[in-house]
Amino acid sequence: MFKINDNYLKLPGSYLFSTIGKKVNAYAAAHPEKKIIRLGIGDVTQPLAPAIITALHGAVDEMGKAETFKGYAPDLGYEFLREAIAENDYRARGCQIGADEIFISDGAKCDSGNIQEIFGPDNKIAVCDPVYPVYVDTNVMAGRTGVYDSASETWSDVIYMPCVAENDFAPELPGKTPDIIYLCFPNNPTGSAIKKAQLQEWVDYANKVGAVIIYDAAYEAYISEEEVPHSIYECQGARACAIELHSFSKNAGFTGVRLGFTVIPKELKCGDVSLHSLWARRHGTKYNGAPYIVQRAGEAVYSPEGKAQLKQQVAYYMNNAKYILEGLKEAGYTVSGGVNAPYIWLKAPGGMTSWEFFDFLLEKANVVGTPGSGFGPSGETYFRLTAFGSYENTLEAVNRIKGL
Amino acid sequence: MFKINDNYLKLPGSYLFSTIGKKVNAYAAAHPEKKIIRLGIGDVTQPLAPAIITALHGAVDEMGKAETFKGYAPDLGYEFLREAIAENDYRARGCQIGADEIFISDGAKCDSGNIQEIFGPDNKIAVCDPVYPVYVDTNVMAGRTGVYDSASETWSDVIYMPCVAENDFAPELPGKTPDIIYLCFPNNPTGSAIKKAQLQEWVDYANKVGAVIIYDAAYEAYISEEEVPHSIYECQGARACAIELHSFSKNAGFTGVRLGFTVIPKELKCGDVSLHSLWARRHGTKYNGAPYIVQRAGEAVYSPEGKAQLKQQVAYYMNNAKYILEGLKEAGYTVSGGVNAPYIWLKAPGGMTSWEFFDFLLEKANVVGTPGSGFGPSGETYFRLTAFGSYENTLEAVNRIKGL
Repeated sequence: MFKINDNYLKLPGSYLFSTIGKKVNAYAAAHPEKKIIRLGIGDVTQPLAPAIITALHGAVDEMGKAETFKGYAPDLGYEFLREAIAENDYRARGCQIGADEIFISDGAKCDSGNIQEIFGPDNKIAVCDPVYPVYVDTNVMAGRTGVYDSASETWSDVIYMPCVAENDFAPELPGKTPDIIYLCFPNNPTGSAIKKAQLQEWVDYANKVGAVIIYDAAYEAYISEEEVPHSIYECQGARACAIELHSFSKNAGFTGVRLGFTVIPKELKCGDVSLHSLWARRHGTKYNGAPYIVQRAGEAVYSPEGKAQLKQQVAYYMNNAKYILEGLKEAGYTVSGGVNAPYIWLKAPGGMTSWEFFDFLLEKANVVGTPGSGFGPSGETYFRLTAFGSYENTLEAVNRIKGL
Repeated sequence: MFKINDNYLKLPGSYLFSTIGKKVNAYAAAHPEKKIIRLGIGDVTQPLAPAIITALHGAVDEMGKAETFKGYAPDLGYEFLREAIAENDYRARGCQIGADEIFISDGAKCDSGNIQEIFGPDNKIAVCDPVYPVYVDTNVMAGRTGVYDSASETWSDVIYMPCVAENDFAPELPGKTPDIIYLCFPNNPTGSAIKKAQLQEWVDYANKVGAVIIYDAAYEAYISEEEVPHSIYECQGARACAIELHSFSKNAGFTGVRLGFTVIPKELKCGDVSLHSLWARRHGTKYNGAPYIVQRAGEAVYSPEGKAQLKQQVAYYMNNAKYILEGLKEAGYTVSGGVNAPYIWLKAPGGMTSWEFFDFLLEKANVVGTPGSGFGPSGETYFRLTAFGSYENTLEAVNRIKGL
């Protein structure tokens, strides 16, 4: 008789955003007359930029003619896209990352979920708390997290690094030594950022203890402050200890287009074995590349027109962030984030739990956010709002909350 | 210090098609004047059908307008596509498969590689020999295959089911009892097919011994004979034991577009746990859906225009298959396949090994095929040619081989 992977059964409840979706759908079905504003899941709302639409149409036309039709993509992605990334995201910032160290994929969620596969079962992971649930859940599925304690909502073999108001939502070096450290800055869900000198401490620490940092840079396009690094490779020594994950979802609105990439420098090794070679093998064996038309759309992100249009798009969302941040402050909320990230992190008022505030906001203001506790125990009593709504909806949502 | 997944190091050599690519590139670099014809990797060459191009352009336009822009797709895929699949691939053939048992993905290669994750480490797998390398390699990566013996090129914990001329390239029920059985019909690489009564025996066997069948139906569009089943769910009892994988790569030329789906009937359980729920959890946690525009392209595959155009496209390739099959027979080769599948399987002449014949064909005829031994030990001395070239190239390749 076949046996299932029973690590899956250890996962408590369903994936956070599935749960939110079900709650919102139930409310909407019961109250069809209400206009619900969704500032929850972090999905974008602005249409793709014209330069991207043009690139997509052009690539579709190529696929319709025998002379320009494209079949299987190169394993690691098309050279034109990897080269554009290497030039714009790295060399232009003084980071030494080559096009052949970049792996194109269908998104940072997939990569952040799959990357743990190239590591053995005995690694101890460290995560910020609160944290993007995928990092922990995929390690649970791989049997790497020990036993779940439902009272504390923590796993016995996971090192949690609390990020709370008291430490300005920046993790401190852990007491126990981890093997794999997940960091995401600008941070999802707290919207906080750290400075280059702070990140350098993490790189130095990882090199000292022989840990790998999995650095999720999905929100780097939202950085507005000078001292905040856009890439971990701005730090000395990062090539020897860090993997970096990137998304096109938030900087270019590709949540429904699906494109991302992972950087693994060739120096990053365990003994003689380079992680680059392992990830290349995974790509070659379990993946068949992102669609050609989507890779052309990714290339357009780096064109002069694309850059100009996307700068505007990011500014549009950051204007929303500012409106939420200031509006909630005026209304007496304790808020943070929203300066280098499209997320606003607020304290639930009146001693409410995160889910109590979720229900309260859904019922009283018909506004959907994300309960902080869904991101980890230190997220309890916090709540995340995103700046990815339309301006009009954001305005209305904030005004509704102010009126509560 | 972090530890790698050392199962990866057990994999002998690189992924088959990467090796072929490197050999061909080296030959092309050394002989820039030669026109190489590639009938190796199984990549298609005909452009996307007009109905699909129209659908793609339409969806791209939707992505460019705020009112019709689409962000994250539903976890399991858009209803419009799942419903089209349920209707056309299943209900129209009398198979009881609901839209909610269909999971949209970015391709059958990914699904066939990822599906093993929902099973525990102790399952014993059975594969046809020769076989699509992804089935075995992904189980190696998961540590499920035991020790590799380089003399026999087999894994100690894998049950091999030889498919050779003597059994008409159809596997026999294994002597040892497997937990997971991989079957692919019409078969890659041999191009053989089995009849419904034969497949029913496998379903009955799996239900008897408590095994799961992972049934790869990627080539079903090429079936030309009445008695060959298009889906395993045409067999009684398959809902309790079978997962089915589908691709849009070969029936619609989506190798560079990326779309596929997996069917898991809700009856398929291990104790109380449905495999459907596990795969749904994996999708929700590690995947973010196929691109909206690509799912619309998939829908167009089932439109009346799409169906008519793709019937022609399949006929075009099968005309190539016929030409290869007959041409090689005339030239004195022992050949099979090519009737219900776009693959022709031939015996290397003059006692050559598969790789010897690969080199011979590359050097003497500048034709690229795939060495049978790359698919498993029983593939040794065999060789695969695909019908996916252009008609002109196929003609020329066959004529070159005839002239050797």
